[in-house]
Amino acid sequence: MQLALSTWQEVERYLEHSTGIIIPIGSTEQHGPNGLIGTDAICPTRIAAGIAEQEQILIAPTINYGMSQHHMAFPGTVTLRPTTLIQVVIDVVTSLHRHGFTHFYFVNGHGGNIAPVTTAFSEIYADLQGDISHPVRCKLANWWRNDAITRLAKELYGDAEGYHATVSEVSLSYYAHPEAVKDMPIHPAIAPTGDIYTAADFRRQFPDGRMGSSPQLASIAAGEQFCNLAVDALTADYRHFLTC
Amino acid sequence: MQLALSTWQEVERYLEHSTGIIIPIGSTEQHGPNGLIGTDAICPTRIAAGIAEQEQILIAPTINYGMSQHHMAFPGTVTLRPTTLIQVVIDVVTSLHRHGFTHFYFVNGHGGNIAPVTTAFSEIYADLQGDISHPVRCKLANWWRNDAITRLAKELYGDAEGYHATVSEVSLSYYAHPEAVKDMPIHPAIAPTGDIYTAADFRRQFPDGRMGSSPQLASIAAGEQFCNLAVDALTADYRHFLTC
Amino acid sequence: MQLALSTWQEVERYLEHSTGIIIPIGSTEQHGPNGLIGTDAICPTRIAAGIAEQEQILIAPTINYGMSQHHMAFPGTVTLRPTTLIQVVIDVVTSLHRHGFTHFYFVNGHGGNIAPVTTAFSEIYADLQGDISHPVRCKLANWWRNDAITRLAKELYGDAEGYHATVSEVSLSYYAHPEAVKDMPIHPAIAPTGDIYTAADFRRQFPDGRMGSSPQLASIAAGEQFCNLAVDALTADYRHFLTC
Amino acid sequence: MQLALSTWQEVERYLEHSTGIIIPIGSTEQHGPNGLIGTDAICPTRIAAGIAEQEQILIAPTINYGMSQHHMAFPGTVTLRPTTLIQVVIDVVTSLHRHGFTHFYFVNGHGGNIAPVTTAFSEIYADLQGDISHPVRCKLANWWRNDAITRLAKELYGDAEGYHATVSEVSLSYYAHPEAVKDMPIHPAIAPTGDIYTAADFRRQFPDGRMGSSPQLASIAAGEQFCNLAVDALTADYRHFLTC
Amino acid sequence: MQLALSTWQEVERYLEHSTGIIIPIGSTEQHGPNGLIGTDAICPTRIAAGIAEQEQILIAPTINYGMSQHHMAFPGTVTLRPTTLIQVVIDVVTSLHRHGFTHFYFVNGHGGNIAPVTTAFSEIYADLQGDISHPVRCKLANWWRNDAITRLAKELYGDAEGYHATVSEVSLSYYAHPEAVKDMPIHPAIAPTGDIYTAADFRRQFPDGRMGSSPQLASIAAGEQFCNLAVDALTADYRHFLTC
Amino acid sequence: MQLALSTWQEVERYLEHSTGIIIPIGSTEQHGPNGLIGTDAICPTRIAAGIAEQEQILIAPTINYGMSQHHMAFPGTVTLRPTTLIQVVIDVVTSLHRHGFTHFYFVNGHGGNIAPVTTAFSEIYADLQGDISHPVRCKLANWWRNDAITRLAKELYGDAEGYHATVSEVSLSYYAHPEAVKDMPIHPAIAPTGDIYTAADFRRQFPDGRMGSSPQLASIAAGEQFCNLAVDALTADYRHFLTC
Ligand code: NI
Ligand code: NI
Ligand code: NI
Ligand code: NI
Ligand code: NI
Ligand code: NI
Repeated sequence: MQLALSTWQEVERYLEHSTGIIIPIGSTEQHGPNGLIGTDAICPTRIAAGIAEQEQILIAPTINYGMSQHHMAFPGTVTLRPTTLIQVVIDVVTSLHRHGFTHFYFVNGHGGNIAPVTTAFSEIYADLQGDISHPVRCKLANWWRNDAITRLAKELYGDAEGYHATVSEVSLSYYAHPEAVKDMPIHPAIAPTGDIYTAADFRRQFPDGRMGSSPQLASIAAGEQFCNLAVDALTADYRHFLTC
Repeated sequence: MQLALSTWQEVERYLEHSTGIIIPIGSTEQHGPNGLIGTDAICPTRIAAGIAEQEQILIAPTINYGMSQHHMAFPGTVTLRPTTLIQVVIDVVTSLHRHGFTHFYFVNGHGGNIAPVTTAFSEIYADLQGDISHPVRCKLANWWRNDAITRLAKELYGDAEGYHATVSEVSLSYYAHPEAVKDMPIHPAIAPTGDIYTAADFRRQFPDGRMGSSPQLASIAAGEQFCNLAVDALTADYRHFLTC
Repeated sequence: MQLALSTWQEVERYLEHSTGIIIPIGSTEQHGPNGLIGTDAICPTRIAAGIAEQEQILIAPTINYGMSQHHMAFPGTVTLRPTTLIQVVIDVVTSLHRHGFTHFYFVNGHGGNIAPVTTAFSEIYADLQGDISHPVRCKLANWWRNDAITRLAKELYGDAEGYHATVSEVSLSYYAHPEAVKDMPIHPAIAPTGDIYTAADFRRQFPDGRMGSSPQLASIAAGEQFCNLAVDALTADYRHFLTC
Repeated sequence: MQLALSTWQEVERYLEHSTGIIIPIGSTEQHGPNGLIGTDAICPTRIAAGIAEQEQILIAPTINYGMSQHHMAFPGTVTLRPTTLIQVVIDVVTSLHRHGFTHFYFVNGHGGNIAPVTTAFSEIYADLQGDISHPVRCKLANWWRNDAITRLAKELYGDAEGYHATVSEVSLSYYAHPEAVKDMPIHPAIAPTGDIYTAADFRRQFPDGRMGSSPQLASIAAGEQFCNLAVDALTADYRHFLTC
Repeated sequence: MQLALSTWQEVERYLEHSTGIIIPIGSTEQHGPNGLIGTDAICPTRIAAGIAEQEQILIAPTINYGMSQHHMAFPGTVTLRPTTLIQVVIDVVTSLHRHGFTHFYFVNGHGGNIAPVTTAFSEIYADLQGDISHPVRCKLANWWRNDAITRLAKELYGDAEGYHATVSEVSLSYYAHPEAVKDMPIHPAIAPTGDIYTAADFRRQFPDGRMGSSPQLASIAAGEQFCNLAVDALTADYRHFLTC
Repeated sequence: MQLALSTWQEVERYLEHSTGIIIPIGSTEQHGPNGLIGTDAICPTRIAAGIAEQEQILIAPTINYGMSQHHMAFPGTVTLRPTTLIQVVIDVVTSLHRHGFTHFYFVNGHGGNIAPVTTAFSEIYADLQGDISHPVRCKLANWWRNDAITRLAKELYGDAEGYHATVSEVSLSYYAHPEAVKDMPIHPAIAPTGDIYTAADFRRQFPDGRMGSSPQLASIAAGEQFCNLAVDALTADYRHFLTC
């Protein structure tokens, strides 16, 4: 059940049996030579849609822009200041909480969002904890960080899965948008690895934007596998979260 | 050309022949008994997609959340604080400007965004005007405010077009998402009109969320007409804007 | 009744029969070759004084500085950051609301204030709507935007009225401050028109600061006419506003 | 020379021989049973006008609202949040600095402004010190804190001068606005003294708003004396400041 | 070499051979029935002192307050808003960077600081990356998260090490402050575990403040072992960091 | 009784007989050729420790960083933005107030903190005054500003006490940290005096960082005297403050 495609009266009825909601959050940033700039928003959007197909779970519109400061040396990347992203998350949760929602499950597609979104949760708990009639719970679920996904990626690609513009996320984005598959040679086969500091430094270390990955291995078929695994894992985790 | 479906190298090439970009911006708010909560994001997203089909124009991901404070008495509405929305717009423009973009054309779906987005433009001009190598131009194009749209709405619905949850926007959202059409009786035939103050007051004055409209008249066919008109009008306006 | 010239006990008595207040808001910015930098504050201050002469209406001190970013390429212009102005408006309304005021009628002299002040109203409604004992209503009345003023300006000056440093506002400021009338030749007779972007761009397009106007036509006598019309129109509008 | 009554070209000429400016800053707050709510803005405005009569010194429009948190338990008081006032001062100075002004002399009427305005100066120095072409100097001159004023107040009223709603400031405001003189018995003859904490506490300690003063002793004639002394003292101090 | 005990000329000389600095950061929050409220500041302060004994490394004063929102239901806990902590970290780094420091190594004592401090690093990189003359590198070293510490804790306490008010941190704080050792029975032997949401919820789940630990096992002797291990591990890590 | 060395249950018991707390606040900034960068934090920390020895008074951890913008032209100085310091003070007081503390006595070591900390108190009063169950009182006690200290400094050093890097504060810091005493010739014998504007200007006027002082006269013995006097004076003042 998509919030964007519902009426307010449908939401009113939904709240009678559940006060949980799933909020996809991504980013708009370079994903290497063949990865889509929207990868990190596309993946959680697709996974959340998969969850919604299974059962009556409300999915909020995707937060398409995230904290991508370190990718800013590549054209097309957009970054929110961390403090802006913190405020966006606070406002979205606070608004929905006013209607009676209590469990906010963010399906996240981007590592750079983890620190600011986690920070936002603390601000939210500080602001809303006085409201004992419907206490608030927030969870950030990074779709790629669970055993099922990690195991499959390891099995399929070994170390070539990488850390940014990973084979799994490029595959999943291709599965979601087959019309956007890019076919091109990529060198070197595996991208370098290292630590992340400033944007200029990132580009110097990782000239084509990848970190440790071989996204030329990406395929729609693998994307479907990753998507199905993520849908199952996150649906189970969300169900458990509702009981907390 | 969708930014989300492009690579950073494709954006690099795009910038060689154009430094303009279109950014759809909407909201997530009640739209009356049969209107979709996502209406104001769906319409500019659909129109921008139409523009992109016509020619090589880059479309950024949609800003799905807007300033909807006055709709907060209806479940499902999400509002950014005005100052949050201002910061989001600043960050998106500032990021893209760093890559060389100069002309930012926001296709807007929501009246409540006008004041904060216009405010953001002033902050942006203050911040970025020192950069004389690529001066910045921003424009907010409210899709429903042009002669072609106004004329058709008047012709089809007269006063029943209304001011919120209008027949034209509900039609356009149905055209974009036929799977979400809602069929229901609505009373009274035409909703009341009045001024907007607090959210509680809004609900008192406009109990089902509509302002002055008869959205039961909405249809997919009319939505297609509105969409085509808007695509043509905004494409022309965007082309002119690039010359400023 | 001027708030600045009252005691707190007089305000206490005023609140027994009215909870409305008028707040003039202007700016400090260039107004072309013969217009006063204080024009936009002087006009609403003078109009508000006229309203106060008619009847027992409380007038707050004028907010003398506004959002004038686009005039910053002309010496003497002062601009508040939009977010500063938003905060000023919030603080003024919130303070007075704490004493029991409920209806805040801003008489505005400057187009650039419209977006940030409107934005501030949304923040105010969000912050104060929980206080149901005395709900808040805000209105921004742009003195030059009403039928009576528009009609007289059209009749007297036709298109030469213009958009910035208009003949009507220069006249009204001369009527309020006859000691500051400037007499000088101005070329060209009618200033150019165009869109507003950055400050540097503004000065390039409008070299002497005027937009579309012939302020050399300004006169004290016309200023008196405009003032009287504005006083009558806004008094009536304010009375109506109190009933909302 | 009033900035509000000048044109931008007059300011341009003024800058050729001086880069100093005087900015009156006050507050809008209770001043006891017979003191005007505008006292703290009226006094610096009147003194600055006196300075401007003497010689060619530019006077900016008055900042009418200040930090009056501790007076908020009395109707009619308006307070800016300290951080708002800080931002207003930053914006005014930064704007004028961009035009080439370097010496900013604030004539202050209100003790509560001292901490936030001094704080703002530090922020300004941090922001603008990189601009070595025209370094910035700010000074806060509290009109009532100089030997001449203190001596006369002591001589005329002894301890009855007090700390808030002082006889000298009420006198000066009456001299500036004789139409607003209030004549009334006041008990007790001298108001209590004490420390300032919250607004509620202030009202408990100082029930009619005065601190330690006997403002029933105020007179227009004394106000003229205080005004003349302040004009002379501050003119001399301003001249010296320009040489720093 | 302690910054607090140096003169500015000694710092000037230090900068000739190193541009790195170590900044201890902690918190002021409950640490269970026998743990010190200052534990998280005491541990990194003590470890940093140990590092400084080994060689010429500059140690900044400790940031004693951190983000401890979730402990606020226990008396004595102090929390900075996450956004305040972010700003503190930005200001400290930015100040030192202006003097020529380039490598900022935070020795952290508190898990709750990780998200906001990491967030601050992104803001810092955004702000300072334009300064190519001395690019900035920040690292957050959580003293308890390294193999040596983890291994010893596992060996000594197994699962009773826990997650908050751990045996290792209580031991280290006792070693640093033997005068403050608390001797008391604690029940149950091992504290419960669970997820962290609001402060009220934290207290409900973890009534005496511990998470999963048996801090009654803490000892000065073990504290000395943990301290020495941490000093060695972090000194090596810091040396490596300087080469990045 | 040090908060950092207490458990939360000890604080709970403390609150049964007192709701007052002492918070040392300093800065990290140059203090001339032989003064310690930590002087302003070291002095209040040492004095507070002395107070705590006398009786059961709770001492919070020291705020080690303050507002030192004007010292930023000397290596090693760290400054918080004034608005950051304001927020830190607000957060510390607000946190402790939530546990039932009502009287917050800041022992301050640095003149530059006075404006922002005083500003913070106003924000705190605004935020917390609604909580009538335990009203809040804040006081900033500048340790060097009391008759006993002033008299001794005058007697020992006359004018050579100075205004920054004073003999008394350098002495007190040496008493607290005898291991850090610096012995060196200083010229000229007495440093120049003047007003404070930007950091660059400060260094130009006061090349070695001192203002008007002869800190080569500093001694551990005098530091002990100053410390004892300050402990007595502030203990008495704190006791009185608790009765307000
Ligand atoms: Ni990604
Ligand atoms: Ni709409
Ligand atoms: Ni105007
Ligand atoms: Ni006053
Ligand atoms: Ni800990
Ligand atoms: Ni000092």
